[in-house]
Amino acid sequence: MRSVSIIGAGCTKFGERWDSSLRDMIAEAGVMAIEDAEIAGEQIDALFVGNMSGGRFIEQEHIGALIADCAGLSRLHVPSTRVEAACASGGLALRQAILAVASGYNDIVIAAGVEKMTDVSSGTAADALAAAADREWECFFGATFPALYAMMAKLHMRRYGTTHDQMAQVAVKNHHHACMNPIAQYHMEINIDDVNRSPLVADPLHVLDCSPISDGAAAVVLVPTERARHFVDTPIKIVGSGQASDTLALHDRRDLTTLDATVHAGRAAYTQAGIEPRQVDVAEVHDCFTIAEILAIEDLGFVEKGQGGKATADGITALGGRLPVNTSGGLKACGHPVGATGIKQAYEIALQLRGEAGKRQVDEAEIGLAHNVGGSGGTALVHIFTR
Amino acid sequence: MRSVSIIGAGCTKFGERWDSSLRDMIAEAGVMAIEDAEIAGEQIDALFVGNMSGGRFIEQEHIGALIADCAGLSRLHVPSTRVEAACASGGLALRQAILAVASGYNDIVIAAGVEKMTDVSSGTAADALAAAADREWECFFGATFPALYAMMAKLHMRRYGTTHDQMAQVAVKNHHHACMNPIAQYHMEINIDDVNRSPLVADPLHVLDCSPISDGAAAVVLVPTERARHFVDTPIKIVGSGQASDTLALHDRRDLTTLDATVHAGRAAYTQAGIEPRQVDVAEVHDCFTIAEILAIEDLGFVEKGQGGKATADGITALGGRLPVNTSGGLKACGHPVGATGIKQAYEIALQLRGEAGKRQVDEAEIGLAHNVGGSGGTALVHIFTR
Repeated sequence: MRSVSIIGAGCTKFGERWDSSLRDMIAEAGVMAIEDAEIAGEQIDALFVGNMSGGRFIEQEHIGALIADCAGLSRLHVPSTRVEAACASGGLALRQAILAVASGYNDIVIAAGVEKMTDVSSGTAADALAAAADREWECFFGATFPALYAMMAKLHMRRYGTTHDQMAQVAVKNHHHACMNPIAQYHMEINIDDVNRSPLVADPLHVLDCSPISDGAAAVVLVPTERARHFVDTPIKIVGSGQASDTLALHDRRDLTTLDATVHAGRAAYTQAGIEPRQVDVAEVHDCFTIAEILAIEDLGFVEKGQGGKATADGITALGGRLPVNTSGGLKACGHPVGATGIKQAYEIALQLRGEAGKRQVDEAEIGLAHNVGGSGGTALVHIFTR
Repeated sequence: MRSVSIIGAGCTKFGERWDSSLRDMIAEAGVMAIEDAEIAGEQIDALFVGNMSGGRFIEQEHIGALIADCAGLSRLHVPSTRVEAACASGGLALRQAILAVASGYNDIVIAAGVEKMTDVSSGTAADALAAAADREWECFFGATFPALYAMMAKLHMRRYGTTHDQMAQVAVKNHHHACMNPIAQYHMEINIDDVNRSPLVADPLHVLDCSPISDGAAAVVLVPTERARHFVDTPIKIVGSGQASDTLALHDRRDLTTLDATVHAGRAAYTQAGIEPRQVDVAEVHDCFTIAEILAIEDLGFVEKGQGGKATADGITALGGRLPVNTSGGLKACGHPVGATGIKQAYEIALQLRGEAGKRQVDEAEIGLAHNVGGSGGTALVHIFTR
């Protein structure tokens, strides 16, 4: 199995990109990644793209061929593959690209993610997103994602004494981080009162507990580690890749306060990397709702189960804390173009490990982790990176 | 790079499966493949599934997690990945599963494909399928898939003297083959007059030149070749895997009478396998329309460019001919549940190489090929198999 490294990364501005189509954004991110890697487009020999629902957002499937086309690589007949695992589609694209390089089938590969969500009404977008849950056993009965995560939050509060103020602190922290990230959707500081006073979506989750609807794209360039320094001085090595599934429907799970898919994907990634959770210096985790970040830092072993809310309130996960989490602003404040999110996480970790994260730089970050979840936890991907 | 072999294969009956949901069919095919491989479900360590448009056909994305769930493997947290390349989604799932085993990341892997198309009206289905073409530059202007392939057919007729009777012979042959295949959607012999008298869809293509709307699922089990004989006596080795892209839109192509993606994917597969086209004993090719089979046998190098119509009329590609093509009945008569098709092709080739294809058995078949196309040729996959 060949070791794989990132030699280039690019990410568009996230947000309501009225100026740009899916095609425009994927080309923009791809060009940034290629220029960052100091390669020519013609050197790429495979493309992988994460996209959740081109079919329902822009009535376009066959996204692999589309992005090869946008990249000018269809004339070279470069193989291009779309993968989908709801909001974990980006992380899944990264993993498939790793498999392609690790296997020896490909040498210089782009892993990208893209979603164009704002061309439809918010109701249509919510319905498209609901297709990540169990249509027959959840959506049909009126469950939405805020409702599903609200149930997890309620039980976490009851079982571990987690408070809504602690959850709100996740949003406050991630908005603060986003203010230092040029690509973030929101450059707006908020406080706990703002979260509490924002409209209630599904008790206990308010609007400011929820990640937004976003447009955006991101891309990274992967090569075999043994060749990485031929291209750039500061390649980032991918030392662990874990993927796991769980039941599609929340009600079938063993426990509502743990995402077992995260636990298993994390375990696989830590084992492959040969590291312990406490060695991680910076992490991007899947905070589709504030409670999700609390579950993630517990399930990834950064804090004990039940201590995620307190750890957040104590500032452990803030920039300057013991383990800064979501320095990009996370899904909450950097934005969540679903297919792009997993790749944006890898982009952020690459910047951090290269020491290029500007005002939000984590001092001496050597080991980074990215955690991407599909739906309410039916899929999870964990990747670990080192300098 | 580890060599990969098929140790089990299963396929549901194709057709209008009013009795079965997507979940039912994927479970049915999966169980068949697992039983055929003589393994227990718990031994599987990764799943890959091709599905074109769960989002639009059954309002369900996150198909990877869904199939892990249906297979009872979500409780073991087995990683499960959905891939999409329109009608080539099945072939793409096979390739991703090969990468997973070749890389060493996984050992016992299922590659599956599924589509449930008949739960929506035929108009909705046609619109969902149109999402495989270029929405902005083809569909928006009224192009449909029969229209796109009709343009290829017209130019092929003009340039090479191909006749509609020759195209019709593709349908006649494939319906004849399907009559010997228990899983086929149509068990109905037709003749050239039937094709000519069937309603015109897009000149020169009649209804009986077109593959149908179908439900179905198929699955194969892959392992490293070095371990294959530990499981079964007659593993099938995958000796070549090629994938290529082309422009999404037909009007951007170099030539309308060649699918360059097929040519490039074929070349990659032949090179890896170290064989010449003339050595192939049996092939499943992508006959979404009758003209598509003619293009395929030319682009794969089985006959000279322009000679596909004549070769078909001469019986070269019929059972008993020099190179039997689409012994399953092909997309035309076995049916075309789009995500399942690429895996059904691998299933048919596995049966042929194992000598288990019953009345449609090709004598002494040793080398088989499967060819799967997305859209009008934006993606193509070619796989080569040996005993």
